[in-house]
Amino acid sequence: MKKIFPLSKVHTLLESGPVIMVSTRSGGRINVMPMSWHTMLDFDPPLIGCVISGDSRTAAMLKASRECVICIPTREIADKALACGEVSGADTDKFARFGLTPVKASAVKAPIVDECYAAIECRLADASMSGKYDLFVLKAVKAWVDSSKKFPKTLHHRGGGAFLVAGKTVKLSAVR
Amino acid sequence: MKKIFPLSKVHTLLESGPVIMVSTRSGGRINVMPMSWHTMLDFDPPLIGCVISGDSRTAAMLKASRECVICIPTREIADKALACGEVSGADTDKFARFGLTPVKASAVKAPIVDECYAAIECRLADASMSGKYDLFVLKAVKAWVDSSKKFPKTLHHRGGGAFLVAGKTVKLSAVR
Repeated sequence: MKKIFPLSKVHTLLESGPVIMVSTRSGGRINVMPMSWHTMLDFDPPLIGCVISGDSRTAAMLKASRECVICIPTREIADKALACGEVSGADTDKFARFGLTPVKASAVKAPIVDECYAAIECRLADASMSGKYDLFVLKAVKAWVDSSKKFPKTLHHRGGGAFLVAGKTVKLSAVR
Repeated sequence: MKKIFPLSKVHTLLESGPVIMVSTRSGGRINVMPMSWHTMLDFDPPLIGCVISGDSRTAAMLKASRECVICIPTREIADKALACGEVSGADTDKFARFGLTPVKASAVKAPIVDECYAAIECRLADASMSGKYDLFVLKAVKAWVDSSKKFPKTLHHRGGGAFLVAGKTVKLSAVR
């Protein structure tokens, strides 16, 4: 269902601040974690800054493979997305445990979470800030969106399990 | 109307990805610009990464003063917030032109935009990534929130003038 999405528009997927799920593959294992601390850094090619705890298995797998997929979940799978943040991939196959479907990506080996409405295949572009700030700079190399979802109900974390759920998108204009 | 907000909860104001307004004071001038490219980098003390174009007057004023205030606008002043992104502070007093009220902050000299429901006073902590990524690391030193706004209608940019407007916040749980 997902179609290729132009790299020059990847910022429109991310700059509203959705919860994302970062999937990785390394050492014959796949893994996925949800997170909210990310920002666009450049438009085209899209550079994305992601804060991923150095203690996490995702950080280790990202460093080893230098690839990941940023997938964007919606309200429909919120409980599964959150669950992926409560167990460690070190001893759990989160895809199997929470009923998420890993599908083959195109440009990277990390899997796409099929239940997510969008997926951004990324290569690790710069890990030089990962020591001081747990900040990884990712370069998007391919993006996919299920364009049948006109108003995807993305999740926006307010901390402590409270989330904004996206409503409709509106066009706003500047005052003159 | 704004009350002091605990620094350890500043992340709850920012991680959902709202449009923010960054105010600065330098050389006897005040200025303010809206932006969406930011991420939390740490909880407490709160560190915030903000992408501010090196060409902008805000970047120059931030570098010179090493201070700013992150203010969070809502739907009610969306047109004014956006307008501040369409003119340069080099030749316009945006506060006067768009009817925004600069009020004195507590720990920094940059002003709080009174019409915003929250304000985070910040000091520039690290500009070492501003050359490569236009990324400034800010440290929050004081925060204020109008706690009468239970469900602030924050704006979340989807690109090209399209915005999510925050609806109600919901509590979500992980699947077991």
